[in-house]
Amino acid sequence: MSQIWVINPNTTESMTAGIGRCAQAVAGPGVDVVAVTSEHGPPSIESHYDEAMSVPGLLEAIRRGEQAGVDGYVIACFGDPGLDAAREVAAGPVIGIAEAAMHTASHLGRGFSVVTTLSRTMGRAADLAERYGMQRFCLGIHACDIPVLDLETDPTARKVITEACRDALESDGSDAIVLGCAGMAEMCAAITAELGVPVVDGVSAATLTVQALVRMGLRTGKRGEFATPPAKQYTARRDG
Amino acid sequence: MSQIWVINPNTTESMTAGIGRCAQAVAGPGVDVVAVTSEHGPPSIESHYDEAMSVPGLLEAIRRGEQAGVDGYVIACFGDPGLDAAREVAAGPVIGIAEAAMHTASHLGRGFSVVTTLSRTMGRAADLAERYGMQRFCLGIHACDIPVLDLETDPTARKVITEACRDALESDGSDAIVLGCAGMAEMCAAITAELGVPVVDGVSAATLTVQALVRMGLRTGKRGEFATPPAKQYTARRDG
Amino acid sequence: MSQIWVINPNTTESMTAGIGRCAQAVAGPGVDVVAVTSEHGPPSIESHYDEAMSVPGLLEAIRRGEQAGVDGYVIACFGDPGLDAAREVAAGPVIGIAEAAMHTASHLGRGFSVVTTLSRTMGRAADLAERYGMQRFCLGIHACDIPVLDLETDPTARKVITEACRDALESDGSDAIVLGCAGMAEMCAAITAELGVPVVDGVSAATLTVQALVRMGLRTGKRGEFATPPAKQYTARRDG
Amino acid sequence: MSQIWVINPNTTESMTAGIGRCAQAVAGPGVDVVAVTSEHGPPSIESHYDEAMSVPGLLEAIRRGEQAGVDGYVIACFGDPGLDAAREVAAGPVIGIAEAAMHTASHLGRGFSVVTTLSRTMGRAADLAERYGMQRFCLGIHACDIPVLDLETDPTARKVITEACRDALESDGSDAIVLGCAGMAEMCAAITAELGVPVVDGVSAATLTVQALVRMGLRTGKRGEFATPPAKQYTARRDG
Amino acid sequence: MSQIWVINPNTTESMTAGIGRCAQAVAGPGVDVVAVTSEHGPPSIESHYDEAMSVPGLLEAIRRGEQAGVDGYVIACFGDPGLDAAREVAAGPVIGIAEAAMHTASHLGRGFSVVTTLSRTMGRAADLAERYGMQRFCLGIHACDIPVLDLETDPTARKVITEACRDALESDGSDAIVLGCAGMAEMCAAITAELGVPVVDGVSAATLTVQALVRMGLRTGKRGEFATPPAKQYTARRDG
Amino acid sequence: MSQIWVINPNTTESMTAGIGRCAQAVAGPGVDVVAVTSEHGPPSIESHYDEAMSVPGLLEAIRRGEQAGVDGYVIACFGDPGLDAAREVAAGPVIGIAEAAMHTASHLGRGFSVVTTLSRTMGRAADLAERYGMQRFCLGIHACDIPVLDLETDPTARKVITEACRDALESDGSDAIVLGCAGMAEMCAAITAELGVPVVDGVSAATLTVQALVRMGLRTGKRGEFATPPAKQYTARRDG
Repeated sequence: MSQIWVINPNTTESMTAGIGRCAQAVAGPGVDVVAVTSEHGPPSIESHYDEAMSVPGLLEAIRRGEQAGVDGYVIACFGDPGLDAAREVAAGPVIGIAEAAMHTASHLGRGFSVVTTLSRTMGRAADLAERYGMQRFCLGIHACDIPVLDLETDPTARKVITEACRDALESDGSDAIVLGCAGMAEMCAAITAELGVPVVDGVSAATLTVQALVRMGLRTGKRGEFATPPAKQYTARRDG
Repeated sequence: MSQIWVINPNTTESMTAGIGRCAQAVAGPGVDVVAVTSEHGPPSIESHYDEAMSVPGLLEAIRRGEQAGVDGYVIACFGDPGLDAAREVAAGPVIGIAEAAMHTASHLGRGFSVVTTLSRTMGRAADLAERYGMQRFCLGIHACDIPVLDLETDPTARKVITEACRDALESDGSDAIVLGCAGMAEMCAAITAELGVPVVDGVSAATLTVQALVRMGLRTGKRGEFATPPAKQYTARRDG
Repeated sequence: MSQIWVINPNTTESMTAGIGRCAQAVAGPGVDVVAVTSEHGPPSIESHYDEAMSVPGLLEAIRRGEQAGVDGYVIACFGDPGLDAAREVAAGPVIGIAEAAMHTASHLGRGFSVVTTLSRTMGRAADLAERYGMQRFCLGIHACDIPVLDLETDPTARKVITEACRDALESDGSDAIVLGCAGMAEMCAAITAELGVPVVDGVSAATLTVQALVRMGLRTGKRGEFATPPAKQYTARRDG
Repeated sequence: MSQIWVINPNTTESMTAGIGRCAQAVAGPGVDVVAVTSEHGPPSIESHYDEAMSVPGLLEAIRRGEQAGVDGYVIACFGDPGLDAAREVAAGPVIGIAEAAMHTASHLGRGFSVVTTLSRTMGRAADLAERYGMQRFCLGIHACDIPVLDLETDPTARKVITEACRDALESDGSDAIVLGCAGMAEMCAAITAELGVPVVDGVSAATLTVQALVRMGLRTGKRGEFATPPAKQYTARRDG
Repeated sequence: MSQIWVINPNTTESMTAGIGRCAQAVAGPGVDVVAVTSEHGPPSIESHYDEAMSVPGLLEAIRRGEQAGVDGYVIACFGDPGLDAAREVAAGPVIGIAEAAMHTASHLGRGFSVVTTLSRTMGRAADLAERYGMQRFCLGIHACDIPVLDLETDPTARKVITEACRDALESDGSDAIVLGCAGMAEMCAAITAELGVPVVDGVSAATLTVQALVRMGLRTGKRGEFATPPAKQYTARRDG
Repeated sequence: MSQIWVINPNTTESMTAGIGRCAQAVAGPGVDVVAVTSEHGPPSIESHYDEAMSVPGLLEAIRRGEQAGVDGYVIACFGDPGLDAAREVAAGPVIGIAEAAMHTASHLGRGFSVVTTLSRTMGRAADLAERYGMQRFCLGIHACDIPVLDLETDPTARKVITEACRDALESDGSDAIVLGCAGMAEMCAAITAELGVPVVDGVSAATLTVQALVRMGLRTGKRGEFATPPAKQYTARRDG
């Protein structure tokens, strides 16, 4: 029995619950998928500032996971915050949902469109596409301008996102859609049904990628850049 | 129960058997992995010519698979021959082993080294790294100059390959190794044990990638470039 | 007297005839240009599948050419099928018409637009532009959505293509047009006259490129990747 | 009188002092340069983990600076931690020392070599070179494998670094050296004297870049990605 | 007291005067900025031909500067004519205004738009963006189609340029504007006021960049490509 | 009868004579190839300064050619000086020898090595490889450190160059050699004979490229960037 932690790096528990449902739905038998909420940081991640401030909480969760003997981790925010640091800290593999979603979509045709939440996060998605070598497949990045936490409550959210996907397919001439927020994960099936094209949810994709790496016994290479960081005496925040 | 065909596009049955063992070893319960040998073409693929000549046999196997209701395919040659055409012909996903191996290795650090068979195939590996966006992770491509079919019979093969991997890690400063031939798949565990770094076998990686895509219900986008090719009256070889 | 074979890798003789007229019209004295039709394969090449299936017939034609002492070859389909394999098999130079057309157009300004037949072939043209280093000059790829074999028979074809060229020049701000199909070769003069910009036909360009290489005594380098592939015992199709 | 804060994102005060001396030495009249130490985080930044954990302290310093009406900021660590988030938070310009050093060195010839501290930080320097568009000028990244805090105390440090620079110039054929750590700033003059080539210290370069931006009235564009992040209720660390 | 020459490589004195005012307005105390007009060449630079013909006059001015002990130079034309040659001839640093403006704008957000004079100069701006590594920040290049010398006399010029900037910001989604002609330098403040985004004038940016380099004692690396060119006996024009 | 001018942009007549012999040797019947020496400028081109100073003389030669009704031009210096300006001035095609040589060599395998004269010119060759899209084929640039004018007189020159080629083939793993100076043109056959690999002389390649363009009626696109530059009143050198 292997264990995978899917970590929501924002502090909103209801979002973690949805992420957990998606991850568990795809995981194979013999794999225990646990959805974990970060214990401190922002309630949603919608800026570089939010993202930077979410990383310590995420890394703390991974350190807890290491003590619990977790086999691999998913970072369940489309900005893939703290990925490099997480790979240093964890013994097993760590995958971001943007990373997994883009890689997965690249297998499905010449290119994909990303549909994300707020316009101001589009730059981060572009940075990640470059980092992962997926720039050549990423034919466009689009925002639907719905804040992350409204995804759960706004009754028009799914319709707005579906229309943004439809426009993206048309303008980009793409073969597939990548949903650009963990909060969209549970809409994936419905959007797929409406559009009739492949729609990739990063939470599912990342969970299966980690599961596959664990199955093959593959983990982050530790002979150089990603070796465990040496212990140091950190200065703590005075007032937490 | 889903079915995945792992197609060896050369005609050497013993090589298919080894590929099949690797693929089946990683596949999850509920997934039926069948190793299939191409019915015509070259006994091994070691040149652009061999590769081009292997494609019709590969596509014929996929057409047979479509009639049998196969859910997804692996092309088990590191040149990923015929991948675009196969994606047009198949309804489900198709993954090449170079594609899967490189994507997988990119999750394990800053970069990987490829160790392949003959020097003359290094160019093809470089082309594929570019095509998949993996050029930035592919820190070096190295040959051990053992012909493909000698991998099974040459008693020194594994040692030579292991040393080539060791040299590659050193000269490239890489975090992981990608084995550049389906014929090396069964050596993966032993080489990993000797080197102590992640070593990626594309047959395993591709099988798990196809399994994951099938699990998520994802298949090649069919609205443009990869739509089923229209039926045409082909002129057959006179004496083939 | 040197001899150049311009090989039509589809099996449609009437198209070969037009290709031959264009090639012979530009060839210099002392150069014998022969237009050759592939003996088996698709009647037109409009998908990755068609292209892959055309390669064995093309390579067979080149093997016949080698026995006849041919000095150089043109592959007269804008997908440049089988180019790498052909370079291994032939002693003399081999040039694709997309390759020659794009290189030629790059000498005429900052960039060119490609106008091709069916939309589904645009991806292949983009792949070739990248492969040849011509991506920076290729400002747009456009389809007129006329099937290849209709180019000869559809009375509106030339007008539709000319308008597609005009739109491409406008939207891309390009300096020149590249015609993206061997079947458009004989329209080149008329389209040039209507548009008043340089229009490049790949059949002419490739014929002159091969002629120039032969004149300089230049042929594919044979010390590595493109050495003659070693003879192997291939498994033939059973019922060809 | 304008005010620039040069923030040391590690918590080592003696290093801040050296950084401050370098920054003040180049600043023009009418510019008040204040060196600031981060109040919590790692004592030195030598891994992705250290870097990620340094960002909250850095951002806190910038928030204090905003309340004090600071005109611009330097992030004085060669990993440029938190740069994007800092640009959201600050009204005035923010420059990282890797950013400034690489840009500056690009004006001095065809390319530069970076000489940094530990090997494990070389990847981050490469990421930054790409991000800033400086990859084409960055001909090599080299480590001297001296930990950051030993730069102040190890009596051989300057000699070791100077030799690493000399080797880098030779192997890369570069025109200039970029010192890859804020802790090397005070060695810049001596190394320049020994090598006789331009040697760029990022602390000086960044201070002058911020000073120039302030002089021109230029600040981060705030109409999109880098707008001030909306206020949110963050969950604090329980025991921080 | 250091001396910087800002050289206008066209022969129009009134344009030099405006350039001089902008450069002197930003220079710090202790820096003597002298605006110099090229003694022969074109009255304005609006083609590759004009640019090529302006270079000998520019280099002659630099040779005069070297005799006068000048510390650094600005080339005050947005095509940055003769930059490489100038770096060979001058002992101190040489910066082009396109170079400085693009680098400066890259510090202000994800990307900038260039607004230049005639459409035919857009290609040169694109070449420079690539050369400086600024392609990734340069989100669009736009022309207002006002000839260079009309910038001083056309009463609608500033309005037309401002509207072109506004359109560029919208279509490119950029964070900042780069003014693409030395003749626009004196409009920078007014355009900034109207648009409310950062607007970069290359004359100011380059002057401050040279000032910073001089302050740090940095000059072009002279150990290879940019060493002083050896003296040769040139054949002079017969009739000037 | 068409006329092509091959212009030597340095003022050394003996070098023009050798260039002329090479160009005439490959030209077809019906093509009149005239070798022309620039009337003013440097005796050899070995720096950015030399190159910049050669351009006015080159452009003057092209203006004379236009009056004489010349059909196309070769710029016979491996730095391809003044190419953009020449394309504005000439009605017919203009090709640089670096341009033609690199394009030609790209047809012969995966990549080529350039062997040039002085080390300080290597950067210019790299710039041109990028400009022409040939960077992916250019596997190395090497200098033999023989000054241009010594190529004619130094009895060891050919041997030194041949050895530099041999080393380049080995270290780069390249398929072909590009000779990086017009002064090496007449050595091409001998070096080819010694090395047994394709060796490309740019003078021959450019002459045949221009001949091919003229044969196809192709010339520089004139609807935008390369339109004839408008006439202007230039300020002449006073004492030139």
